[in-house]
Amino acid sequence: MAFDATRMKDFEIAEAAEANMPSPEEWRERLGLEKSEVIPYGRICKLDFMKIAERLKNRPDGKYIEITAITPTPLGEGKTTTTLGLVEGLGRRGLNVGAAIRQPSGGPTMNIKGTAAGGGNALAIPMTEFSLGLTGDINDIMNAHNLAMVALNARMQHERNYSDEELARRNLRRLDIDPTSVAMRWVIDFCAQGLRRIIMGIGGRMDGYLMESGFDIAVSSELMAILAVATSLKDLRDRIGKIIVAYDRKGNPVTTSDLEVAGAMCAYMRNAINPTLISTVEYQPVLVHAGPFANIAIGQSSIIADRVGLKMFDYHVTESGFAADIGFEKFWNVKCRLSGFVPNVSVITTTIRALKMHGGGPAVVPGRPLPEEYMKENLELLERGIPNLLHHISIVKKSGVKPVVCINAFSTDTREEIAMVRRYAEQAGARCALSEHWLKGGEGALELADAVIDACNEKVDFKYLYPQEMPLRQKVEVIAREVYGADGVSWTPEAEAKAKRFESDPAFDGFATIMVKTHLSLSHDPYLKGVPKGWVLPVRDVLVYAGAGFLCPVAGSVSMMPGTGSDPAYRRIDVDVNTGKVLGLF
Amino acid sequence: MAFDATRMKDFEIAEAAEANMPSPEEWRERLGLEKSEVIPYGRICKLDFMKIAERLKNRPDGKYIEITAITPTPLGEGKTTTTLGLVEGLGRRGLNVGAAIRQPSGGPTMNIKGTAAGGGNALAIPMTEFSLGLTGDINDIMNAHNLAMVALNARMQHERNYSDEELARRNLRRLDIDPTSVAMRWVIDFCAQGLRRIIMGIGGRMDGYLMESGFDIAVSSELMAILAVATSLKDLRDRIGKIIVAYDRKGNPVTTSDLEVAGAMCAYMRNAINPTLISTVEYQPVLVHAGPFANIAIGQSSIIADRVGLKMFDYHVTESGFAADIGFEKFWNVKCRLSGFVPNVSVITTTIRALKMHGGGPAVVPGRPLPEEYMKENLELLERGIPNLLHHISIVKKSGVKPVVCINAFSTDTREEIAMVRRYAEQAGARCALSEHWLKGGEGALELADAVIDACNEKVDFKYLYPQEMPLRQKVEVIAREVYGADGVSWTPEAEAKAKRFESDPAFDGFATIMVKTHLSLSHDPYLKGVPKGWVLPVRDVLVYAGAGFLCPVAGSVSMMPGTGSDPAYRRIDVDVNTGKVLGLF
Repeated sequence: MAFDATRMKDFEIAEAAEANMPSPEEWRERLGLEKSEVIPYGRICKLDFMKIAERLKNRPDGKYIEITAITPTPLGEGKTTTTLGLVEGLGRRGLNVGAAIRQPSGGPTMNIKGTAAGGGNALAIPMTEFSLGLTGDINDIMNAHNLAMVALNARMQHERNYSDEELARRNLRRLDIDPTSVAMRWVIDFCAQGLRRIIMGIGGRMDGYLMESGFDIAVSSELMAILAVATSLKDLRDRIGKIIVAYDRKGNPVTTSDLEVAGAMCAYMRNAINPTLISTVEYQPVLVHAGPFANIAIGQSSIIADRVGLKMFDYHVTESGFAADIGFEKFWNVKCRLSGFVPNVSVITTTIRALKMHGGGPAVVPGRPLPEEYMKENLELLERGIPNLLHHISIVKKSGVKPVVCINAFSTDTREEIAMVRRYAEQAGARCALSEHWLKGGEGALELADAVIDACNEKVDFKYLYPQEMPLRQKVEVIAREVYGADGVSWTPEAEAKAKRFESDPAFDGFATIMVKTHLSLSHDPYLKGVPKGWVLPVRDVLVYAGAGFLCPVAGSVSMMPGTGSDPAYRRIDVDVNTGKVLGLF
Repeated sequence: MAFDATRMKDFEIAEAAEANMPSPEEWRERLGLEKSEVIPYGRICKLDFMKIAERLKNRPDGKYIEITAITPTPLGEGKTTTTLGLVEGLGRRGLNVGAAIRQPSGGPTMNIKGTAAGGGNALAIPMTEFSLGLTGDINDIMNAHNLAMVALNARMQHERNYSDEELARRNLRRLDIDPTSVAMRWVIDFCAQGLRRIIMGIGGRMDGYLMESGFDIAVSSELMAILAVATSLKDLRDRIGKIIVAYDRKGNPVTTSDLEVAGAMCAYMRNAINPTLISTVEYQPVLVHAGPFANIAIGQSSIIADRVGLKMFDYHVTESGFAADIGFEKFWNVKCRLSGFVPNVSVITTTIRALKMHGGGPAVVPGRPLPEEYMKENLELLERGIPNLLHHISIVKKSGVKPVVCINAFSTDTREEIAMVRRYAEQAGARCALSEHWLKGGEGALELADAVIDACNEKVDFKYLYPQEMPLRQKVEVIAREVYGADGVSWTPEAEAKAKRFESDPAFDGFATIMVKTHLSLSHDPYLKGVPKGWVLPVRDVLVYAGAGFLCPVAGSVSMMPGTGSDPAYRRIDVDVNTGKVLGLF
């Protein structure tokens, strides 16, 4: 029995469902876990992934299903909702199923987004915990990250104030950090535009080292990227020790290990390495691990959560950030390469609304009413927008993974519109299912679940888009042409010089290629909708994250710190002082 | 059986004791709690104080024992160790006993202090959790506090960028904040001297509001003071809404309520309101709640933790910050007035070492070997230092609370030295006990336990030092003369003007008086040891914390942000990647 999502608000559905939510002890019994593998945190829990992975190492992996999307409108097309709905639908078929999603950031939650827990009958609970910090992973990342900055600035102060002899008495060597080449900034998990650029170290000899700095949103921390790709505690520790915080006056990197702070940073992250277990409103297990910043980091749920999920569940559903050109491409060529996992199916979340936008419909703006084109049948706009979907299908097919198109149903969709999307998707060699999980929960997602089960029975001939040893610029060329549909790539002289250096230095041999590009277009220009033709991808910089092991070619501008708007969500949030319940989150 | 503290390091004792530490479920049974009153967080738990206080409201309160100290050396004289040792000693006598202590800050832990978990056989466990964030209260405070700063700076940006009409369309009125009168700063829980003074808001129209700001250590946040004095969730919510973040151009206060952010701040603190339950190495219950910043805030374990402890335990031991002139004075005249609790006994922690320092011994400097005077018998120095102890005894006696002097034993103390302290203490009307809890745990604290039990049987004629309605300047005069032993108080013109304003404005009628003064002397000058005579207390400012309800007369300078030294503790901290254990914390 689904909740009446047309009348109940998300938080009301959540509250009703939370009354019967499994306790950590009930999860333990249901999932066949050992007592020591379940670490309770109030009414939710973390799972000790090292113990579970070790105990189940000989169990075959379950089916591996990725959720991606077409190029979205700024409203998003319901990827998390589809993830949760599919899990509920597979659950209704009596299967042992679970999911891995990412933890929301306090920035969007307090600013405009509200929660990121899905919606309607495809909702993650408990909603308050999920929305407000869960089991503290982002706080752990924030503290670990900022401790490195404390160590960096204090070291610069001490090296300025003390002679070599005085440093030696403290068992310190001079790192000789170049104050104009500091690579790291501070983090905070809010949209704090006022901290984007700061001058710090103002005062006297004992007040730090004067320099320009700033704060990024915590979920964009390199530590979050590391958490997403780490495969063990040892791997986490090793990667933390390789983070470049600055360069010395000779241009050599200065790392967290040079600052002797990497071990303490890892100590702050000792709990964050374990995924958190929450629930759908139909009581299927959902792992939450790593964060949402898909813009510049990998933006995936973690390898560790997928490792645990593939061992515990017969069908494990995982969500990637943004659309298939960004999220799926990184899932395919980076995350799967690092994990060794082979996916069976990729679900391409689609809405009639977004396809109409790609067909030339008016701009979709958050906070403003949807134009009429989106509220009534318009087969012409829809048909003109469908090439965007076909392009995303073709991206998935190149990997050998089976594409399943999910039409995420809206009440305004007409029978003819749905039939048209179906026809084109099937002609392109994809399965297609209409899914009404928002309205009906698992019962509404049965068609999608069946399409996924069916696709999972096919053999997968999984292949990467490019070999790891391909030179960086060539990789970018392949991704731009094969995935984005560009005619080629142009490089600024600075970006090309960096790329050449990375290509020739064997220290970067194993580094992953993480493209940085808008998610609002297949191109680098967010205003080009549909399938842009006759364009070249401009790369203006290549960022290096030595701990995560990422080289990030940057096409277009990227902000690591969003701004808080004039009508932020925190205005409506409060606590019921009699019950302790949080109000107004959603 | 105690551990061999002369051979084992603290973390080794902790690890050995943790093997048999009660689980949350075992605590529940032992303390007779309901299932819903125990909120597990891994191997520790929080207690739902509202449920427990309601269920036990008719149970009589236990005996209430406060732990304070003489004026300490910079090394500290073992107040936490004495708290834990006394609890262990009372436990050995078969009594139902527990304690409330404060949570350590990441700043000192990562800088020089290591942990604050006591030591030897008077140790709090689990040590890693206790030292590294526990159940997240300080993170919650940090996030709640910084959200107010995000709201403040964003609002200043929007008011600068938009006309009154544009603001009205967003349902915002112009607060007209004076950028030169911003009262609040950011917080972070590390010793980040480089963030003491910053310029923020650098950039364009959308990059915040340009202003000077800075970061204080998170435990000095007004929210921590509020957590310490709040008596209910409603009280917490009300106080949060009264925090002054700035003043408008007319000089009127602008609060978190004006920014419409107080409810969301409270949402971030919904878990922090519940105390955390940990253990001594002899498995007595220890509540941990509120933080350590005694310099400028109240610096006490919380009223809520004491509320729960007095209901659950027959003997409840609570720790105040610093010595009797600071910690006990605030406990006596502020915390007890707000809580309505009446203490039975105050234990004055004393070391032979500190008394010798007060008698004219050489300076005691952290990190340097102790001078010979402190390692050998020296009755002359000791006798000259004893007036400091007698002064602290006299402070406690003025409240009507029974003083018990605890000589915290060191191996270098001689029989004659101990006998001399005993003689003077008893002559002054105090009980006195030698306590070897560090070496022997509860068995070593039996004499102290018996003295406390004995003192608890006496009737207490508890009286405050001053009535709440006494004018502010007169209160400061009384505290300076009666507690510190000053000849009077001098006021800078600015401080006096502020004091007059607070005295005449009925809005400040219920405000508590929180003196700000060094803990290293009875006077305002940390270099004046013993019992300084012939001096006047100089008050240079009066700070106002409208949420906590504090007026803070400031004598001397106070830093809200310590600095990270050149040999910080994080250099030695790491994680064992095979076991997940944190190494080198202690």
